[in-house]
Amino acid sequence: MTADQLTVTDAGEDAVLEAITEVIAPFNAQRSGMPLGPGDDAACLSFPAGAAVITTDTMSEGQDFRRQWWLGPEELGGTEFEPVAEWPMDIGTKAAAQNLSDINAMGAEPTALLVSLTLPPQTPVAWVQDFYRGMIRACSAAGAENCVIAGGDLGSGEVISVTITALGAPPEDGKLLRRSSATAGELLAVNGALGYAAAGLEVLELPGAEAVTEAEEQHCEDHAEIIRSCLKAQQQPEPVLTAGPSALAAGATAGMDLSDGLLRDAQRLAEASGVRVRLDDEVLTRRAGRLEPVAELIGPASAAQRAAHWVLSGGEDYGLLATFPESAELPEGFEVIGRIEQGSAEVLTGLETGRRGWDSLAP
Amino acid sequence: MTADQLTVTDAGEDAVLEAITEVIAPFNAQRSGMPLGPGDDAACLSFPAGAAVITTDTMSEGQDFRRQWWLGPEELGGTEFEPVAEWPMDIGTKAAAQNLSDINAMGAEPTALLVSLTLPPQTPVAWVQDFYRGMIRACSAAGAENCVIAGGDLGSGEVISVTITALGAPPEDGKLLRRSSATAGELLAVNGALGYAAAGLEVLELPGAEAVTEAEEQHCEDHAEIIRSCLKAQQQPEPVLTAGPSALAAGATAGMDLSDGLLRDAQRLAEASGVRVRLDDEVLTRRAGRLEPVAELIGPASAAQRAAHWVLSGGEDYGLLATFPESAELPEGFEVIGRIEQGSAEVLTGLETGRRGWDSLAP
Repeated sequence: MTADQLTVTDAGEDAVLEAITEVIAPFNAQRSGMPLGPGDDAACLSFPAGAAVITTDTMSEGQDFRRQWWLGPEELGGTEFEPVAEWPMDIGTKAAAQNLSDINAMGAEPTALLVSLTLPPQTPVAWVQDFYRGMIRACSAAGAENCVIAGGDLGSGEVISVTITALGAPPEDGKLLRRSSATAGELLAVNGALGYAAAGLEVLELPGAEAVTEAEEQHCEDHAEIIRSCLKAQQQPEPVLTAGPSALAAGATAGMDLSDGLLRDAQRLAEASGVRVRLDDEVLTRRAGRLEPVAELIGPASAAQRAAHWVLSGGEDYGLLATFPESAELPEGFEVIGRIEQGSAEVLTGLETGRRGWDSLAP
Repeated sequence: MTADQLTVTDAGEDAVLEAITEVIAPFNAQRSGMPLGPGDDAACLSFPAGAAVITTDTMSEGQDFRRQWWLGPEELGGTEFEPVAEWPMDIGTKAAAQNLSDINAMGAEPTALLVSLTLPPQTPVAWVQDFYRGMIRACSAAGAENCVIAGGDLGSGEVISVTITALGAPPEDGKLLRRSSATAGELLAVNGALGYAAAGLEVLELPGAEAVTEAEEQHCEDHAEIIRSCLKAQQQPEPVLTAGPSALAAGATAGMDLSDGLLRDAQRLAEASGVRVRLDDEVLTRRAGRLEPVAELIGPASAAQRAAHWVLSGGEDYGLLATFPESAELPEGFEVIGRIEQGSAEVLTGLETGRRGWDSLAP
């Protein structure tokens, strides 16, 4: 058995921790912010501002991803699409990105990630190292230049489960981007894609097809770019980690990240701020239009409706939803998608909505 | 269906978060340290000292506990022992205590807990509230007076899984209790019980007996106190959260908490410090003696050996292992159990050791 094939059970806890340190130590060494790394009962982080923004999120096999998604083209509805990357790296990237997105959505700068990893006994040690490499990839995005990986905890379980805790430093003036401070008359804007991750999920969940028609193959070829973007959004999300601080700098009054779908998250913002949100149906219909070729791949019958549903209710986009005064100059990457009005806390749209977003406890 | 029976799936994510806030908001309101609580993408904590100690730990059903442990006396090897408390509270207490113990073992003071909770769909909302009440119980211990519960994340899964992240404030002089700074000539001391949690685990794992003999019942009655202490150590651990800071104040040179068994943890301290540890077999034999009646409950044949094995290799005691200069006056609750010597990094004992402690990745 080579070192590459060694399982975590064969290696034991201490050897796996060493294998992890091998990956993260050179990464952390290039960054400051961790006076004391792994090796003791806890790590020690420095917080120059004296305050820390903190969040945590779990990703579990079966519930949040399935390893089949990375198996190969014959599993992807008979399409020609290769898996976008090795899966341990993608799991690491996505678990980190979810949490980094929450820190960014407060207008803060991520400073550290902590990981608790539950692994089936037969998981190769190399898998664990690649998982950490995926976290490093997420921390290499603009805006995360000062983020270290402070180690964590290892345990055994039937399925893979990853809990990441992220810490961040608030802006120098201490002002955070909250959900509760939008007021009537402001613009609602979004940074990043809408519905791409949900579209990618449906492509990944397509049943394997024995026979693919020539027309289907041609469709995939013609729309390769958008299909690939959707798969990437689901498997390797790259939230823009400068969006929160730049929104605050541009005068954003409220904000949050889009993790459970536009309608559901905008509703939360409406409730927290006590305002009504009116969506710009024209802009959203145009956004849905981009996803129609992907929707046709799922089922040609109601493709436009499906694409609109992704845009309105698809989860895991990790874009930043923020409100700005009408006079504000929106930072690069933001597009106005609605307005804040006086009225009861609700989200108005003339588009067909269907089910409203992702509930982490739904069956 | 009454509110008490409502499951997390019936209620949905937002309602469960409200039910959690109902429990933790009054608790947090009595403590400072959290300028911004749940309700946004992340919480915000204040760190007066500008540095934070941080750790994370996962507890999973099947791997770290079994709900059967709380079912009733007929499941506990036919003994007369009622479950020590309602199980959601105990899970909350233990998950919090594990992490608080790590912060304490750095000589730091716990300031905040963050929770990620994975729950089977049929979990009652009341279970979740009791789980948080158990965390509050753990935070009510001396030494944790300034610890808040900063909320967290909710998800669905086949079994219960809890990941807690704990943050702490280093002592004012910034000096932490590390593993790597023990030197030859010093005393090795421990605060808290040795082997009790492992003994409790074996009692809980006794197969249910159809018939219990009179002699067995009498044995349980005669040794009720120690048996109950062992169950409590396993189900409701109460690490002494003042031990770390008081050890540092008394001049402790190195330290760590006992989570994987004395031999295994002392070996880690020996390796980190580059020293040899010689255990005091007489003291440890006396400690094992206290557990012999519990060992007899498991099997009368090799009770003394079993008790010694618990003391040397039993995990989850969450006592503090620390080294002190010979001249130091040991703080209350510490007992000398060995000496630090020059030599290769190993732990010497004349006692029979068997398997060396708990490996979180062992099958």
